[in-house]
Amino acid sequence: PRRVTWRRGLDLNDRALRHVVTGLGNGTVRETGFDITVASEVMAIFCLATSLENLQQRLAKIVIGESDPEHGRRMQITAADLKAVGAMTALLKDALRPNLVQTLEGTPAFVHGGPFANIAHGCNSVLATQTALGLADIVVTEAGFGADLGAEKFLDIKCRAVGLEPAACVVVATVRALKMHGGVAKDDLAAEDTAAVRRGASNLRRHVENMRGFGLPLVVALNGFRDDTPAEIETVRAICNDLDVPLEPCTHWADGGAGAEGLAGQVVALCGSHTAPFQPLYELDLPLAEKLRTIARKLYRAADISLTPGAAKTLANLERDGYGRLPVCIAKTQYSFTTDPDAKGAPEGFILPVREIRLAAGAGFVVALCGDILTMPGLPRYPAALDMRVDAAGALHGLD
Amino acid sequence: PRRVTWRRGLDLNDRALRHVVTGLGNGTVRETGFDITVASEVMAIFCLATSLENLQQRLAKIVIGESDPEHGRRMQITAADLKAVGAMTALLKDALRPNLVQTLEGTPAFVHGGPFANIAHGCNSVLATQTALGLADIVVTEAGFGADLGAEKFLDIKCRAVGLEPAACVVVATVRALKMHGGVAKDDLAAEDTAAVRRGASNLRRHVENMRGFGLPLVVALNGFRDDTPAEIETVRAICNDLDVPLEPCTHWADGGAGAEGLAGQVVALCGSHTAPFQPLYELDLPLAEKLRTIARKLYRAADISLTPGAAKTLANLERDGYGRLPVCIAKTQYSFTTDPDAKGAPEGFILPVREIRLAAGAGFVVALCGDILTMPGLPRYPAALDMRVDAAGALHGLD
Amino acid sequence: PRRVTWRRGLDLNDRALRHVVTGLGNGTVRETGFDITVASEVMAIFCLATSLENLQQRLAKIVIGESDPEHGRRMQITAADLKAVGAMTALLKDALRPNLVQTLEGTPAFVHGGPFANIAHGCNSVLATQTALGLADIVVTEAGFGADLGAEKFLDIKCRAVGLEPAACVVVATVRALKMHGGVAKDDLAAEDTAAVRRGASNLRRHVENMRGFGLPLVVALNGFRDDTPAEIETVRAICNDLDVPLEPCTHWADGGAGAEGLAGQVVALCGSHTAPFQPLYELDLPLAEKLRTIARKLYRAADISLTPGAAKTLANLERDGYGRLPVCIAKTQYSFTTDPDAKGAPEGFILPVREIRLAAGAGFVVALCGDILTMPGLPRYPAALDMRVDAAGALHGLD
Amino acid sequence: PRRVTWRRGLDLNDRALRHVVTGLGNGTVRETGFDITVASEVMAIFCLATSLENLQQRLAKIVIGESDPEHGRRMQITAADLKAVGAMTALLKDALRPNLVQTLEGTPAFVHGGPFANIAHGCNSVLATQTALGLADIVVTEAGFGADLGAEKFLDIKCRAVGLEPAACVVVATVRALKMHGGVAKDDLAAEDTAAVRRGASNLRRHVENMRGFGLPLVVALNGFRDDTPAEIETVRAICNDLDVPLEPCTHWADGGAGAEGLAGQVVALCGSHTAPFQPLYELDLPLAEKLRTIARKLYRAADISLTPGAAKTLANLERDGYGRLPVCIAKTQYSFTTDPDAKGAPEGFILPVREIRLAAGAGFVVALCGDILTMPGLPRYPAALDMRVDAAGALHGLD
Repeated sequence: PRRVTWRRGLDLNDRALRHVVTGLGNGTVRETGFDITVASEVMAIFCLATSLENLQQRLAKIVIGESDPEHGRRMQITAADLKAVGAMTALLKDALRPNLVQTLEGTPAFVHGGPFANIAHGCNSVLATQTALGLADIVVTEAGFGADLGAEKFLDIKCRAVGLEPAACVVVATVRALKMHGGVAKDDLAAEDTAAVRRGASNLRRHVENMRGFGLPLVVALNGFRDDTPAEIETVRAICNDLDVPLEPCTHWADGGAGAEGLAGQVVALCGSHTAPFQPLYELDLPLAEKLRTIARKLYRAADISLTPGAAKTLANLERDGYGRLPVCIAKTQYSFTTDPDAKGAPEGFILPVREIRLAAGAGFVVALCGDILTMPGLPRYPAALDMRVDAAGALHGLD
Repeated sequence: PRRVTWRRGLDLNDRALRHVVTGLGNGTVRETGFDITVASEVMAIFCLATSLENLQQRLAKIVIGESDPEHGRRMQITAADLKAVGAMTALLKDALRPNLVQTLEGTPAFVHGGPFANIAHGCNSVLATQTALGLADIVVTEAGFGADLGAEKFLDIKCRAVGLEPAACVVVATVRALKMHGGVAKDDLAAEDTAAVRRGASNLRRHVENMRGFGLPLVVALNGFRDDTPAEIETVRAICNDLDVPLEPCTHWADGGAGAEGLAGQVVALCGSHTAPFQPLYELDLPLAEKLRTIARKLYRAADISLTPGAAKTLANLERDGYGRLPVCIAKTQYSFTTDPDAKGAPEGFILPVREIRLAAGAGFVVALCGDILTMPGLPRYPAALDMRVDAAGALHGLD
Repeated sequence: PRRVTWRRGLDLNDRALRHVVTGLGNGTVRETGFDITVASEVMAIFCLATSLENLQQRLAKIVIGESDPEHGRRMQITAADLKAVGAMTALLKDALRPNLVQTLEGTPAFVHGGPFANIAHGCNSVLATQTALGLADIVVTEAGFGADLGAEKFLDIKCRAVGLEPAACVVVATVRALKMHGGVAKDDLAAEDTAAVRRGASNLRRHVENMRGFGLPLVVALNGFRDDTPAEIETVRAICNDLDVPLEPCTHWADGGAGAEGLAGQVVALCGSHTAPFQPLYELDLPLAEKLRTIARKLYRAADISLTPGAAKTLANLERDGYGRLPVCIAKTQYSFTTDPDAKGAPEGFILPVREIRLAAGAGFVVALCGDILTMPGLPRYPAALDMRVDAAGALHGLD
Repeated sequence: PRRVTWRRGLDLNDRALRHVVTGLGNGTVRETGFDITVASEVMAIFCLATSLENLQQRLAKIVIGESDPEHGRRMQITAADLKAVGAMTALLKDALRPNLVQTLEGTPAFVHGGPFANIAHGCNSVLATQTALGLADIVVTEAGFGADLGAEKFLDIKCRAVGLEPAACVVVATVRALKMHGGVAKDDLAAEDTAAVRRGASNLRRHVENMRGFGLPLVVALNGFRDDTPAEIETVRAICNDLDVPLEPCTHWADGGAGAEGLAGQVVALCGSHTAPFQPLYELDLPLAEKLRTIARKLYRAADISLTPGAAKTLANLERDGYGRLPVCIAKTQYSFTTDPDAKGAPEGFILPVREIRLAAGAGFVVALCGDILTMPGLPRYPAALDMRVDAAGALHGLD
């Protein structure tokens, strides 16, 4: 292979490994980088595989690089070309079986697979979901980060890929987050501020509109915090009334399952009420750039996308090489509808800058990296490790 | 830190990571490399630690780099300076407890810790050995690679560091290896060749002499292979007679414990016969270069060592910085007494080229890399992974 | 210095040197790159210096990097801090004297200094211009690339910096270029196509409007080519009539000075007619981003600029550090008003993507790299060197 | 090409460029480095070329790298394969003509070409020498550094390559250098110390013996310094008497040509006396390693050479590829017969460490880099540039 685009994965946050040169002194110097494991295409494949056989088929399609051009054209090199599929499957075959765990109250749950919700589709494995659907009347899937990231990918990628039809949607909100979207600084969130809650409602409103666009009945779950005041909760209730969406304040953080019983009742009711068919946000027949533009405009409310010259070229090559019908997976910050983590509330009319396109042929989607998003996080300024210690008795301190 | 000498560890053979440049694009570019985990100083520390407290003290001493010079002198930066000791200990504290396993016949054994026998001292943990000594009358320690590497380090580093007094020594030989040292090519080893066995005896003779130099009573165990002929075994017996050392042919590969009963009896007998005190090969008071020269001359029979200018400078700095009394740990090929894997038999009068010196302050030794020895191996020309596959029934093939 | 932002200069087109890692093996690894000499800030300084003393003052201000942060803030390191100014001046002091040459017909000319018209301001030295103004009634300055690059920088940077007041402006056009802007492929330019000339007039019209915006009287010089047809020339004449600007077809490529006599007369006439005062495109008091936006909108007719996060941060730092009043120098392709070399004619409403900001503190401007523009060109796909040879008689072939 | 071994040349001492990674971000990352121009093979070729045609033939042979292996073997890529010879010749063709200059007293001299005396053969161009031989009765060639480097290469490489037969040899000595070789520190050289001169004579004696070994009549020229005392000069005279070699004290540094008249007379006399035929130190038929060993033993008085594994492998490949009959060119420090610049006098019995072998196929020799020798020098700790300045009147200071 002439160009190797496959990056190494490592389960450590080591920012110095984001961009490295390898192979010094041994004749094959390459420019590459490390991603954390959950950002690897292998994790996404693992979570979208419908069987051991399907896992192998997906692994085989991973594109790891390109050959030198022959007859004027570079050829893609896949994991199958490297004969790596058998060994990769051998490593993953036991992990592929969903592991059933339980909550503190004994409710069964699957915790199985953890793809990033930016570079990948952000929700647990298809096998876990399908197994659960065979065992229970109602299965809840957590689709992480904001609904513009997690829910969109759960619906447009995972559900579409395997024919799942979700019956209802829970949008989770908090008073604190609404106040932040209303402009309150992080250190001031404890003080009551109903005006800020009202200002931040623009963000919640958009998520509700977005989810309705998929044809899903929905409820807003208000995740309670100790500092929430009755006036603030009533403000949220008024907002939801305006939006004609039910609100269920939840206190499971304090009361366990009992604190979410109201929400559970609402969800059961909504599941029965489901009439309109679920529909993805975009058709797979659109050109790749149009799919990105559709998400940017309809969900994020951007005026348009901008493509770096490299991103535009990669998109064109992917269309030419037959990947044009894949869904797209947008990697951007979860803190804003834009690529600027500080742009709170519900910004409109901005440009979504697409800086790089990566193919995840095995996972079955095309990733668009937008803004500054990173696939190998760094440590916080004050690493938690600095406070860890083991005392003379062998007890461990500093993990809380 | 201005210079960071600490390398990353990874439990994969990835030769492209031996020498890398990291931190591109984020302002702190560094030249470094990866070693495999067993080559990390942390593994050596783990195996030499005598308690959880001692583990912490050793980790604290790890030198990871140097500061910019102040008042004309660079200062060493340790793991303690980085406040990393608590977190490292937290990760290792459960692993530090020796795990008792058993052989197929039920004999208890500890498999605990695996430092490389070149860059490190090559034998299992002190805690496992000490625990075993508290539980059994006789404890056998495997000290890997040739006796010039594994045994020398077991005796000069591990035994000296914690006051162990070995009672006897088993030198393991094979007819095949003696034939190789007698000049037979690998593909021709199956054919009977007593002349080659006799020629290769020079290698066995030196190992026997070397072990006697430590004051240890010894026995040669002849590890049987299917192709060994009676004439070849008799040739080895004659050689051992000449050396006045008992020989015990062993067939445990075929007969289990029964096949090594003779050897066991010899070892028990030797343990009782131990009269002369065990003595290390060199005194710790010698300058570091003299310790290297002593091993090179007495054990390897080199004429002398040569030091690259960088190695000479590092040795001088280490003496200046107070590390002069540490034992030394020579990293060289296990295939020859020299640094040339093809120099079979018992070469003499060669120069041992020392190319680089590394400090393992926490482990408590100074490593001398000699010849081409590597701390991150590569894959074989035909990786075993190419033949692995999982069949439709989920069964794994290609691991044998 | 912690971060070194100064790049090396080299007078060779070697694309592999655009982005390099240096200092391997000697303890100070850095990520940097090479620019060609004409892209170096030293060339821009050389061309803007008004005296030997002013040259030294400008060289002293060059920012080559930043210190480690002290008291929470990085400090800039200048060439003066490195005590490099004396030696740099010593190398440049003889070159600083303008060298008078002559055309084939004996007209005096200065060829003195050659800064790139993208990364720098693109016209010859101030000292040459001022010397010429002391010696002749009329001095013509060539301001390279399109008028959106060369002329804008000549006027907004060079003229403003030293108080020059240009009396008239010659816009150079060719029938071939107008046809290209009208959509004709490069290989088809020889065929007569008056419709294409008319379509391409949009490009000429904008340049004329742009130059008028500076308050300059102007004439269009039509640089003749062998393939131009009378009908095409008449088409250009009609376009210029519409624009109310005189047209002067020139044939100096064939007829020498005589072929440009008409143009010369027009210029002399215009110089007398100059009434409105020359005015730069933007005021220096505007924030840096506003200056960029002004050029992008008024001259290029972009809808807006977009800034990468890095570019936005650099602009903010420059404002904070007192560089906010410098003029700006846009580096973009000369083939289009946009950053896309294929966007011919007179595009409107596009976004100008600013990917990187560099400070040229000594030259006295802030560079904005837009789109894919490079500061170290590569060789053409078929390097001219392949055809060069010296024959047996020592004669050189292949340079034409 | 898969491996590119050709390094870039630059006429600046920039130590950070010794070892670099290039091509980041453009798909072809390579590990390489810069040498200063005088260390480039092109300079050596230029100085050994006998005509324009021979120059082209030599340039064509330059090996710049190796192909990917085909049929199990890598193929060398030459400058001819790249079609670079014509363009290189075009750049060099005017420079190839020797430029005649004169001394302050009007003596004609050629200063033409300057290859390093370590990595290359260290003396001026063959064309200059041959031109001079056609114009004058006696031609003196300066062969730089110590006679173990400059003279050896002048004789074994340049003279042998083009059939020159030197008639006599001048060995230049100084009282100061003899005192240094006698153990006096650099700062104490001004004080009279005849005992040190006597001790340092061991160095002079070896150079005299070495030159006699080539069959050359010789004279020692004592280059006078202000601090030399009559007693010291007499001590040198006594040493030369013992060696049976004439001594000529010279004062041309003070008296111009008149100060070297005695030496000139001696040289004229020696040229007439030349009877024994000149003979090189080694035969070209020896294996490459033997040639290196011969120089190391006969000239430097080393016990032996040592080869790093890489150097040994390169030598074997060169023999296999047909370069075994080339002469060798040893790059080592000029401050000692050994590779340790501090080993003064006439050391014996040391090992000459050969760390790297480079082929100069066009120049026609094989370079052996020994010890720490560098092909891209660094700046001194206190660069002279720091004191350079140009004053207000334009005068330059700080160059003396």
